[in-house]
Amino acid sequence: MSIIVGYIPTREGRAALGAARNEALLRKSKLIVVNSHRGGRDYDAAEAQRFEDELAKVQQELDEAGLEHEVRALVRGNEPAEDLIEVADESDGEIIVIGLRRRTPIGKLILGSNAQRILLDARCPVLAVKATEE
Amino acid sequence: MSIIVGYIPTREGRAALGAARNEALLRKSKLIVVNSHRGGRDYDAAEAQRFEDELAKVQQELDEAGLEHEVRALVRGNEPAEDLIEVADESDGEIIVIGLRRRTPIGKLILGSNAQRILLDARCPVLAVKATEE
Repeated sequence: MSIIVGYIPTREGRAALGAARNEALLRKSKLIVVNSHRGGRDYDAAEAQRFEDELAKVQQELDEAGLEHEVRALVRGNEPAEDLIEVADESDGEIIVIGLRRRTPIGKLILGSNAQRILLDARCPVLAVKATEE
Repeated sequence: MSIIVGYIPTREGRAALGAARNEALLRKSKLIVVNSHRGGRDYDAAEAQRFEDELAKVQQELDEAGLEHEVRALVRGNEPAEDLIEVADESDGEIIVIGLRRRTPIGKLILGSNAQRILLDARCPVLAVKATEE
């Protein structure tokens, strides 16, 4: 069984990684970090660095707990949702963890299409977490 | 800490209850089942009976594991999403568990407004599960 989380160098991505770490440790499961980010408008170099640091820390924690982990860099021309769902299907996914943006008080009631697709199409449960305030 | 799940006498509701049971046992947390269903078009008497049977079984399992549980029947005139989020806030909610409908191959890409609201507005992580095929 494995916990699947998408690699996204944003605050939401870091929140998802942290939650995925907790689930892997709690369930004694393998962690698979799927990197299907292609840069672009959401890319934030400082956040990417924080994400990398966080990822290294999580990997070390899992090492110490004797839990398997891997980072899969996928370049399949897929939407992130498709990649995450495929990896979950291939690797006996127990849970997919995704990060959601917190909406502002006047924010519209709408989830991103990738999040909706993962929630609706994943065969396994999906854990949705929000970024913490900084 | 507690696991919060909405009471909905549907296949999705039963799937959510089962997942909430697993989380309560895994995390050794209290389970709070929130009943804010008001009958209406989604009501299915046979499914409601199966849900009640399932709920009794889950309560017995939690009893045997020495874990607290309660069923809260709320009549506050709220949407189910508001009730679930309020209960999660009041009771140090660790996770809210919700059940989603599986879409058909030609199904539209859209989540129900209650599900979206819980996902976007809950302060704690939300675990979304789908009903299993029967």
